[in-house]
Amino acid sequence: MRVELVCVGTELLTGKVSTHSVGLSERLRTLGLAIARETVVGDDPSEMEAVFREAWRRGDLVICSGGLGPTFDDITRDVWSKVLNRPLRFRPELFRAIREKFRAMSLPMAPMNRRQAFLLDGAQVLANPNGTAPGQRLTIGKKTVVLLPGPGRELFPMADDFVLPWLKARVPSGEMETRVWRLFGVSESDVDRCMRPLVRSEKSRGKIKVTWGILAQEGVVDVDLTVGGPTSEEVSRRITAIEKRVRKIFGKGIYGIGRETLEETVGGLLKTRGETLALAESCTGGGLAERITRVPGSSAWFVEGLVTYANEAKKRLLGVPESVLKKHGAVSRACVLAMADGVRRRARTTWGVAVTGIAGPEGGFAAKPVGLVYIAAAGPGVRRAWEHRFSGDRARIRERSALWALERLRRLLITIPNK
Amino acid sequence: MRVELVCVGTELLTGKVSTHSVGLSERLRTLGLAIARETVVGDDPSEMEAVFREAWRRGDLVICSGGLGPTFDDITRDVWSKVLNRPLRFRPELFRAIREKFRAMSLPMAPMNRRQAFLLDGAQVLANPNGTAPGQRLTIGKKTVVLLPGPGRELFPMADDFVLPWLKARVPSGEMETRVWRLFGVSESDVDRCMRPLVRSEKSRGKIKVTWGILAQEGVVDVDLTVGGPTSEEVSRRITAIEKRVRKIFGKGIYGIGRETLEETVGGLLKTRGETLALAESCTGGGLAERITRVPGSSAWFVEGLVTYANEAKKRLLGVPESVLKKHGAVSRACVLAMADGVRRRARTTWGVAVTGIAGPEGGFAAKPVGLVYIAAAGPGVRRAWEHRFSGDRARIRERSALWALERLRRLLITIPNK
Repeated sequence: MRVELVCVGTELLTGKVSTHSVGLSERLRTLGLAIARETVVGDDPSEMEAVFREAWRRGDLVICSGGLGPTFDDITRDVWSKVLNRPLRFRPELFRAIREKFRAMSLPMAPMNRRQAFLLDGAQVLANPNGTAPGQRLTIGKKTVVLLPGPGRELFPMADDFVLPWLKARVPSGEMETRVWRLFGVSESDVDRCMRPLVRSEKSRGKIKVTWGILAQEGVVDVDLTVGGPTSEEVSRRITAIEKRVRKIFGKGIYGIGRETLEETVGGLLKTRGETLALAESCTGGGLAERITRVPGSSAWFVEGLVTYANEAKKRLLGVPESVLKKHGAVSRACVLAMADGVRRRARTTWGVAVTGIAGPEGGFAAKPVGLVYIAAAGPGVRRAWEHRFSGDRARIRERSALWALERLRRLLITIPNK
Repeated sequence: MRVELVCVGTELLTGKVSTHSVGLSERLRTLGLAIARETVVGDDPSEMEAVFREAWRRGDLVICSGGLGPTFDDITRDVWSKVLNRPLRFRPELFRAIREKFRAMSLPMAPMNRRQAFLLDGAQVLANPNGTAPGQRLTIGKKTVVLLPGPGRELFPMADDFVLPWLKARVPSGEMETRVWRLFGVSESDVDRCMRPLVRSEKSRGKIKVTWGILAQEGVVDVDLTVGGPTSEEVSRRITAIEKRVRKIFGKGIYGIGRETLEETVGGLLKTRGETLALAESCTGGGLAERITRVPGSSAWFVEGLVTYANEAKKRLLGVPESVLKKHGAVSRACVLAMADGVRRRARTTWGVAVTGIAGPEGGFAAKPVGLVYIAAAGPGVRRAWEHRFSGDRARIRERSALWALERLRRLLITIPNK
């Protein structure tokens, strides 16, 4: 089945980042499907008409997002009506539902919202619990077009509720299983290099179909892989065999499966162990605490974080000795250990983790260049420090520092037995 | 001039977010140009050939990114050679330059990197100081194709060095001026609603051409607007008139121009005033400190930030009285003021800013629902607190809280005279 994605909206060509293909491709892969082409087009009637016509000619399924709003430049419905030669019909029940939504929000409904109650003749309505624009799905012969609203928080739930189940009933029979491995400390290109031959060798074995993708963001690399085959036993056996190979290649580099973040993994470990954490940060400026507290319920393990930017603050709040700062400087193994010890002692937590470094662009010199970062962890019977030399700009150095601090703590927590 | 963007790479259809159209459209707008269509295609030869052929047929300028790497699936050069019927020529001087790059990085060069030294017959080389793949620009008749590498850190510098200047010499004569206004606390749709009639009325005045775009991210809305016209005097006069109208509409909502961030504006104000800042955070979990310290040189005004997640930490580190916590709770006007006072007093800074709230998803109840956030600022003769009720998920509530804390401080700094 050839799937084409068409994204409508001038804003997508003038500065707005679209994540539709990210979210949709991830969902389609669970059915062994891929997006063959994505076209982005502005709110221009003739350009839209040309794009819709071509996508309809080439594709078996066209997913078209955007342009379902109430304003004069939301013309996706009208252009598809022209391209498919299908009239738009006013649906009073849709209009009532839209009016009801405005009433529930205590907002006045503008007359132009009536436009959203028009449906391509013969199309199915796709309900939109997160916005006013209903979606539509229309099948003509062997081809189908699905119209989805532009905002992700409306589009993705609609895809989950109406597109995926509908597709699942239509893609060639057989069984599917998807697994996502999350890696840290491995580069995207290394993952790519290791996975390609693995997938290639798996693909050539019998009736098994393997589709996969890599998503790298914020230092984390996700590998997601879907196996399709004639029976669930065969699929299950094959994915278990692949998982074994993947784990053999990447080992402890795999920190989680599914959509778990590094901070969730660390939080989960601390929670299970019944331990607590306090942080002392310099170059990351609060970025590490911000990550730890992204996790709902993190107050169960996180007590406090001190962003000691000034040396005076390192002394007053953490008890870092003046002598350490004088002899070794604020960016040193001795200082980071004193920071971790200090915050742990004062906050009376199981673990104290500290970061200090030079994020740049100023402040570096030959012996201590920009990118030099120390991380320390102090815990029951443990006291460790690590030196890193990160490249990139200030933002990247800070992000890498926070992520590596999490990773260092994770590695300790999975190695050191709970007391 | 019709500009088409073609992005090559299976990863762009399987999970990688592309920001090429964001960065390129912003650059093109400074010349009064827009991207008419963007097509994203995987590393599939026949699909690529079809896409290239169509883009070349429709466009005056085709910007094609990706697929210039050394591996077997980097076939952009080969497919364009077929589509344009232009042979690829090996350029020994390019090969030497690539080999030299590997030598400088102390990395061995794989034999397949030789592929990157092939140039479409008649094309100009575009040097790539940030990677190994050189770009290419080829004009045939009135059409031009530009091949750029996929990674943004290679693509954008190359666009700045070779595409923009080349275009500038070719777009219809006349003068151009671009201005970017950055707004906070105004919704994207409100900006859109206010700007549309303004631009429409300006467009209709004589030989002036106005192009514009909106980019909303992280609560900040950028309006960028380019005026083109026959003389620089006329352009300048017109953009000044437009700026007046824009400022009249949005007032203090405009916090900066160009690419300045909210934290840069606040940092700049503190620096100019010679004042210092300390932070006390609860629900933002360090996110406010992380923003403040994104700015290089922030150690000049930022002393420390205390992420007091536990009540015990609020008492010990900030001196919040037990009675306040008991009577009003940690999420209250009284508590946030005590936090701001406490951190300011202990850190001996000019300003103390504090945030406390319920980020959810748990922890809310009828009187104090998820999204209730208090922000306070304490300074010389000033002591203010604000109540906010944010909607959205945990991440959004935390982000909004941090941004609004910055905005509250900014508004104080621009209103209160420096002592």
